[in-house]
Amino acid sequence: MYRPQIRILDCTIRDGGLMNDHKFTTEQVKRVFDACSKSGVDYCELGYKCDKSQFDVKKFGPAKFCDEEYLREVAYEGGSKVSVMADVGRTDYKDIIPKKESIVSMVRVATYCKEIDKAIDLGRHAKAQGYEVCVNIMSVSHVLEPDLDEALGQLAETDFDVVYLVDSFGYLYSEQVQYLANKYLKAFEGTKIEVGIHCHNNQQLAFANTIEGIIRGINYLDGSVYGMGRAAGNCTTELLLGFLKNPRYNVQPVLDLIETDFLKMQSELKWGYYIPYMVAGILNKHPRTALAMMKDSQGVSYGDYYRKLLLEGEEV
Amino acid sequence: MYRPQIRILDCTIRDGGLMNDHKFTTEQVKRVFDACSKSGVDYCELGYKCDKSQFDVKKFGPAKFCDEEYLREVAYEGGSKVSVMADVGRTDYKDIIPKKESIVSMVRVATYCKEIDKAIDLGRHAKAQGYEVCVNIMSVSHVLEPDLDEALGQLAETDFDVVYLVDSFGYLYSEQVQYLANKYLKAFEGTKIEVGIHCHNNQQLAFANTIEGIIRGINYLDGSVYGMGRAAGNCTTELLLGFLKNPRYNVQPVLDLIETDFLKMQSELKWGYYIPYMVAGILNKHPRTALAMMKDSQGVSYGDYYRKLLLEGEEV
Repeated sequence: MYRPQIRILDCTIRDGGLMNDHKFTTEQVKRVFDACSKSGVDYCELGYKCDKSQFDVKKFGPAKFCDEEYLREVAYEGGSKVSVMADVGRTDYKDIIPKKESIVSMVRVATYCKEIDKAIDLGRHAKAQGYEVCVNIMSVSHVLEPDLDEALGQLAETDFDVVYLVDSFGYLYSEQVQYLANKYLKAFEGTKIEVGIHCHNNQQLAFANTIEGIIRGINYLDGSVYGMGRAAGNCTTELLLGFLKNPRYNVQPVLDLIETDFLKMQSELKWGYYIPYMVAGILNKHPRTALAMMKDSQGVSYGDYYRKLLLEGEEV
Repeated sequence: MYRPQIRILDCTIRDGGLMNDHKFTTEQVKRVFDACSKSGVDYCELGYKCDKSQFDVKKFGPAKFCDEEYLREVAYEGGSKVSVMADVGRTDYKDIIPKKESIVSMVRVATYCKEIDKAIDLGRHAKAQGYEVCVNIMSVSHVLEPDLDEALGQLAETDFDVVYLVDSFGYLYSEQVQYLANKYLKAFEGTKIEVGIHCHNNQQLAFANTIEGIIRGINYLDGSVYGMGRAAGNCTTELLLGFLKNPRYNVQPVLDLIETDFLKMQSELKWGYYIPYMVAGILNKHPRTALAMMKDSQGVSYGDYYRKLLLEGEEV
């Protein structure tokens, strides 16, 4: 009944960290890694590899930088594989140390489509250092189709492991995911590159779109515990664990983790289905103004915010 | 671009009323009806037609009984059409007064599949009184297929207007909705009966499943404001309004209504994506134990609740 090639990647600490400047406690990250490991989650993404010359270490938690010391404190061998994200333009190549010195299994390069050449360069460096390499092309709902085709064509010529379809703005619905999933899968036919999907939940479609990806043949699935992620958050890891039939998966440890750690965090940080995020999603906009609206609406009503975003240009 | 046959039915007061014993204030119901009307929502369901010999009027709000006096106070001509729900076995036929004396346009008969003969009898009575008639076959994820086929066959021989596919337990995902939608649509081919879809959101799939219904050819779509409904609640009306392309629809009045009335109600009544409801959904169970768990967990953890529900029989 199940497809053994499917992998779950939990990105709670990485994407969720965008809501708290990655200021998780060491114990929290440990509990997330442990619950993921016990639930059979294949990869646990423990943060970003951000360049310390660009970001002040005092303003962010250690998951923003993923030093080897931090990673070894929170993760252990025999659990989920460890993944870290490296943003194009925000990563010091020297921080991608040789695989044999690291607990990390996979480096995920995050890029805008227009910077695909830089992403491939960074990915090649990570590959040369010995890692599994994944490339996430962000904000696909803003990419012109010829540019996307060209990027996928370039990626198909690499020896990378996974390329992700990423709906950063939570804009897509099933028929659009189907169209894009087919495009990605076709681009990598005859290669060893797997396709992944990372969805945001602005329209409560993140889980459904991930299922749509599975149906089309996508094998790498991003989730986060209780959906923790930027703005509306992500497809939830617990729904994926509840849905997938591989006997390796068990939702129970993640359910208990939600109760002990995530209810309170969610009530404070407020990721999820909130109207400003929903409005940004239906209008295919970056969530930055919605995040500002959630912090301080300055007397702007939900309806007015919708109208403002509808009528204004891209960069409001 | 849009399909003119599509109708939105907002069931906030009716389904949402299951979370507060229908104790809305008159002003709240007025605001819901007004926002629905201004947003172009086709039908606004203002409650149940419950038998007062079975339910104590002092224990419930007026939306539980939908006396004509209440309906005329909260609704007005020229707005959304008014719909009321009549439960099989809980309705006094005498309460379905002649259409010419009522502001109601549609009577929706709610039934379990096994009581389809009673539903058809009640529906015929409503039809004879002059109303549009709709039948909602509840809890379809618990119905045996031959029974469902027989019920649909019987309904196809009536002069009713709509029959709803109802995922009461929020259990279905896209491929199952597709299968059932095709079944319903085929059953009513060559008749004037339209098919509707009413989804619950236990797995955050209510909106996605409603879209799946649209893609298959379903034209009647249930939503509720901010998803207010029993347990995990429903597909949200605002997401439907944001998605559908008919120029008649405008999401703005509903967004403002959420801000003025629904944020506070949601924080108190707690419908939506909560883990006990999610657990009941993935296990295809009635939400009654999840509702009890939300009120008082009695020290049972989320993980234990999952295990308990997984291992126990149908009626826990």
